[in-house]
Amino acid sequence: MPQNIYDEESFFSGYSTLARSVKGLDGAGEWASLRALLPPLAGLRVVDLGCGFGWFCRWAREQGAAAVLGLDLSAKMLARAVADTPDAAIVYRLADLERLEVAEGAFDLAYSSLVLHYVEDVQGLMARVHAALVPGGWFVFSVEHPIYTAPSTPGFVTAEDGRRVWPLDGYLAEGRRVTNWFAPGVVKQHRMIGSYVAALLRAGFVLTALEEWGPSDAQVAEHPAWADERARPPFLLVAARRG
Amino acid sequence: MPQNIYDEESFFSGYSTLARSVKGLDGAGEWASLRALLPPLAGLRVVDLGCGFGWFCRWAREQGAAAVLGLDLSAKMLARAVADTPDAAIVYRLADLERLEVAEGAFDLAYSSLVLHYVEDVQGLMARVHAALVPGGWFVFSVEHPIYTAPSTPGFVTAEDGRRVWPLDGYLAEGRRVTNWFAPGVVKQHRMIGSYVAALLRAGFVLTALEEWGPSDAQVAEHPAWADERARPPFLLVAARRG
Repeated sequence: MPQNIYDEESFFSGYSTLARSVKGLDGAGEWASLRALLPPLAGLRVVDLGCGFGWFCRWAREQGAAAVLGLDLSAKMLARAVADTPDAAIVYRLADLERLEVAEGAFDLAYSSLVLHYVEDVQGLMARVHAALVPGGWFVFSVEHPIYTAPSTPGFVTAEDGRRVWPLDGYLAEGRRVTNWFAPGVVKQHRMIGSYVAALLRAGFVLTALEEWGPSDAQVAEHPAWADERARPPFLLVAARRG
Repeated sequence: MPQNIYDEESFFSGYSTLARSVKGLDGAGEWASLRALLPPLAGLRVVDLGCGFGWFCRWAREQGAAAVLGLDLSAKMLARAVADTPDAAIVYRLADLERLEVAEGAFDLAYSSLVLHYVEDVQGLMARVHAALVPGGWFVFSVEHPIYTAPSTPGFVTAEDGRRVWPLDGYLAEGRRVTNWFAPGVVKQHRMIGSYVAALLRAGFVLTALEEWGPSDAQVAEHPAWADERARPPFLLVAARRG
């Protein structure tokens, strides 16, 4: 069983204050870019790997998805998702992505937002997602960018020459990273872009998009605090199709 | 016409002392990994984009390639390539990759080692390479890794907390970077991994491998000076096929 930090009170209450928790999808800077990678949803059977409060599940139904399955490891998040979702075509289920069990060929689209960097066995997950999709089905996901997860201690630093820089070290050393984010000891899995791509290709997917997301100049003008995010991308967005 | 730094005397003489210039392919740490991305060469018609001293062209013929065209912008490098190549099936030609002109469907494999980060119009080049290949043809290339090209000033720095880190800044700001490497004012084009991938896919390629190369622990044991290269990958290796 992986760490379930989202159910720890300090983490949950902190995470609940984020714009993406309060405003939903439009509160996430990368949403417009991630949305652009999605196929038209009308009539699709969708699974959301790490659905959190259910924002994407509800949005998918608004777009005409036939049925949505939301999976998450956090009972607290699912409780709120269920309470906020008066829609019988959306089903939520407590699930550990390390041991994902879903029926073969049951979905047209698998979606996952900022969750896979918590998963240790991403190769196993990719294979199970591939099997869960129909031929031609889509897999669209975002993760924390490997540049973001790599440093032994994340956070901008000042170099001897006065430059404010992102302190990259250990990029090639994949594996566990422990950070403090709303709670001490949050465990993530650092892996390289190349490793995400290799896992997808090995599972049988065809890569259709890979975007290293950072805010546009227009977004920085609107949210000056996001300026740092152009120095190093916070998120990696990926789309693939089952061959 | 792009900068032709390789023909400047100080650069040329410095570059000529590198292990990869003296020993050829086996003098390059990433060669074994790049080689693993290549198809069997027997009978293939090969074009090498930025062939330098011709090491790869000669190796390709040793592997049974039917014919090899080596293109380079540097007259000095080509002169040495020609002098070192007593093989009528290898042809060298002075060429600017910004305006590559090759016959359609003339090649089975396009190869390029550490050159595309000098090219401004990489989208145009990808389209021309795609057209130059037969259906099912391969495009295998390496470039300096975007993490390596991004910083305003490349080179490890010491952070306030004493860590030795790679000073990442401006990763999202694609375009011109001027560095000093054997000669002052060497101009490179920084672009993101996502942009290389997008250019490939837009040109009609199917991505088959993407590897962020750094030395293995065994290589670092053999070459202790390479240890830094595990903090941030120096090279990006890519393989794709014409659909």
